[in-house]
Amino acid sequence: MATLDMFTLTVPVFSRALNNLLHILQKAQAHVEAKQLDPAALIQFRLFPDMFPLARQVQIATDMSKGCVARLAGVEIPGYADNETTFADLIARVEKTLAFIASITPAQLADTADKEIVLPLRVRTLTFSGLVYVQSFAIPNLYFHITTSYNILRHNGVELGKMDFLGQ
Amino acid sequence: MATLDMFTLTVPVFSRALNNLLHILQKAQAHVEAKQLDPAALIQFRLFPDMFPLARQVQIATDMSKGCVARLAGVEIPGYADNETTFADLIARVEKTLAFIASITPAQLADTADKEIVLPLRVRTLTFSGLVYVQSFAIPNLYFHITTSYNILRHNGVELGKMDFLGQ
Repeated sequence: MATLDMFTLTVPVFSRALNNLLHILQKAQAHVEAKQLDPAALIQFRLFPDMFPLARQVQIATDMSKGCVARLAGVEIPGYADNETTFADLIARVEKTLAFIASITPAQLADTADKEIVLPLRVRTLTFSGLVYVQSFAIPNLYFHITTSYNILRHNGVELGKMDFLGQ
Repeated sequence: MATLDMFTLTVPVFSRALNNLLHILQKAQAHVEAKQLDPAALIQFRLFPDMFPLARQVQIATDMSKGCVARLAGVEIPGYADNETTFADLIARVEKTLAFIASITPAQLADTADKEIVLPLRVRTLTFSGLVYVQSFAIPNLYFHITTSYNILRHNGVELGKMDFLGQ
């Protein structure tokens, strides 16, 4: 029987999505090596001048994941330097995030659906319940930044398909 | 107190995401009118030759939503003709989908987390539990196709921001 709790709604979802992002980045890395491309041509690519480049998309996807489970669990959010310049760097960041997420236990997330989450953003502060934070902010943002990473790579000819995004 | 059930995991999530897609399409329609563009330049645009154009992205985002709640509820999936050629057509399709989703009640989705969902795809048949179907297929696909719609429009200069995707 499936249990619907805050752990089920977050940890396995983030873990699955980030594993798919990892796999996408590994394919991109192999593509760059096979074609002898400058990796920066992909890592710094933006779909429009005022959109974020690939590196920032990967940074935000991981930030959304570690920030969400850490805030719900009430533990410190691991800080990363945001200085990735190669595919190996980006892959290491996703792996580091996956390891942190895997350290969170169901007990740490018990009864967090109504927990008040205060999120200080650049322009204003958002306040959510735990459930609304997960459903209306963390998960849509996570998929937005993974999809945009995928789209940047697809737009540049990396051979990816929908199953790379969805996983098996 | 928040209730974690299959209704909470689907209907309000799809409704919110599709309302944001509606808003994005309305902004694109206004952009096309203001700049006197051929709407087909956006509606048929693909980020790469073997990716789907905007019209198909919107069709799939709506299909994922209506298919998911209908399969869980055990009601017939509304069939649409997939013949949208204008922004007005695409907007009408999203509105029609929102109305169908709003017709689904919590009672219809009660105890569907473990319901067997059989999904005949082009290449193979997928079998999921209700919960896995929602979390690993319907929701990632929904956000994938809405984000790709957003990226197609942003790439073509439509002035959108992250809040248009997330909603208020």
